[in-house]
Amino acid sequence: MVARESQLVLGLDPDPDRLWPAATAADSSGGSPGTPAEHAARAVAEHCRLVIDAVGDQCVAVKLQLACFERLGAPGWTALQQTTQLAQQADLLVIADAKRGDIDISAAAYAQAFFGETPTPFGPVAGIAADAITANPLLGTDSLEPLIRSARERGAGVFVLVRTSNPGAEEVQELGLVDGGSVSDRLAGMVARLGQAGLGEHGLADVGAVVGATIPDRLAALREQLPHTILLVPGVGAQGGMVESLAPMFAPGPAGGLISVSRAIVAAHHKLGGDAAEAALDEAARLRAAAWNLSVSTA
Amino acid sequence: MVARESQLVLGLDPDPDRLWPAATAADSSGGSPGTPAEHAARAVAEHCRLVIDAVGDQCVAVKLQLACFERLGAPGWTALQQTTQLAQQADLLVIADAKRGDIDISAAAYAQAFFGETPTPFGPVAGIAADAITANPLLGTDSLEPLIRSARERGAGVFVLVRTSNPGAEEVQELGLVDGGSVSDRLAGMVARLGQAGLGEHGLADVGAVVGATIPDRLAALREQLPHTILLVPGVGAQGGMVESLAPMFAPGPAGGLISVSRAIVAAHHKLGGDAAEAALDEAARLRAAAWNLSVSTA
Repeated sequence: MVARESQLVLGLDPDPDRLWPAATAADSSGGSPGTPAEHAARAVAEHCRLVIDAVGDQCVAVKLQLACFERLGAPGWTALQQTTQLAQQADLLVIADAKRGDIDISAAAYAQAFFGETPTPFGPVAGIAADAITANPLLGTDSLEPLIRSARERGAGVFVLVRTSNPGAEEVQELGLVDGGSVSDRLAGMVARLGQAGLGEHGLADVGAVVGATIPDRLAALREQLPHTILLVPGVGAQGGMVESLAPMFAPGPAGGLISVSRAIVAAHHKLGGDAAEAALDEAARLRAAAWNLSVSTA
Repeated sequence: MVARESQLVLGLDPDPDRLWPAATAADSSGGSPGTPAEHAARAVAEHCRLVIDAVGDQCVAVKLQLACFERLGAPGWTALQQTTQLAQQADLLVIADAKRGDIDISAAAYAQAFFGETPTPFGPVAGIAADAITANPLLGTDSLEPLIRSARERGAGVFVLVRTSNPGAEEVQELGLVDGGSVSDRLAGMVARLGQAGLGEHGLADVGAVVGATIPDRLAALREQLPHTILLVPGVGAQGGMVESLAPMFAPGPAGGLISVSRAIVAAHHKLGGDAAEAALDEAARLRAAAWNLSVSTA
């Protein structure tokens, strides 16, 4: 992250009807066989490859929205694996934006899917080997521990939803508690506790928190409760968040936060005009510099 | 449900190392080619087929734990689709136990994955066509609406997590609120509101609630707040819940609740001895009768 002078995470949530034209053309032109799902999944993987080629140098990670791959079925899952490998070959971390949360035995199965492998009578089946996953904490600590344990074993991480970026987030997450604070404050406490055993370089923990860019006042308050936590901050761009209002995320230093941007980069050409790859690079470079400069001036 | 005199949901969370012996043998013996993931996924699909064959007549639905399929990658997703189709051919409803919850645009993508189809330049890609999905409400109403809208269009349903069955559930779900009640009470209110537009036969809504069998006192209290809601109740058996303590779920009548049982049926032969299929049928028949008799005596 520091070597690249970037805290920018490239969000990839590919919509088969809005891929970069070159990605769709690549699969349409050859007359290659396959079902619509297979064609669409190949085009999605090619789109992700093109976007990573264009802007990967500006970024430190990619965040893959699982829903966008799952809707293409088995071929979509193959595209997810291909994109994961491709991003890692480009020295990018892969954050599986899965928002999973389930009881212990099922959480352990998700850990096998995303971090580990599944023992079978036919030999072990490797998961997608993500570097991090996003997780939903509604089911409590015992639902997160199997993911964290598995992540920790391989030097990966878990980002727990604490305060999301969507308009309806406050409906549950900001409910006021009898004992003071709100649900999201309590989730922050859970994250701090779970991360204590996993403090790494820069004094930062391997259990991170997702906090939306759209509510800078809450981000500042939650950062005070989470001094050792890497914040993954979505919501810049299409959802209305501004990099300039995010200074508190870098209170622990430049490694203290990751800014995830999806549509504002991938669809930059709709706003800026011109070639998709060039527009994406321009926007990614601008966002990378804005975040880095903010982090250096904050620390 | 009434025609079958059953409220029993067969939970399928297949572990490739604990499949019924005949399922593993079927794929091992033929010397068929494939990767470990392909072999394991075929064995998982065969296991699900055998279990459905054995106990399907006692049940009204199957609940498929997505984590168990995802950990086998693309072949696992194929097994998920095959099992969905097979269960529906056996006149069983399919509940995708996905516990998804994401911001609006991603929730819409999950709706395409589970209920609808995804438009692509290569033609539409069908999702798995589940009859219901489980959903996590931490992100609020706007994260649930795309799933509910899509479900409602095709006569399917959404079961929202309100109070889960795991030991750590109370950590977040039972936090006391300044305005009275707990988080789970508030989630129940959300479910009631979201279901108002989808009241169907028996006066029951198409937005259901997941409430664990392990906390019968909370189940009774939440039922009072949710008089028109179908409760999906996991946690009977391996997690310690007892059918006999669940009478309040049937307050609206026999169609008011579904009892989901996984390991207690599929692994019944570990406890009862004998053939896996026979033991599963014995246990499923016992549970079906216990639930039906309870529902008839409650109503």
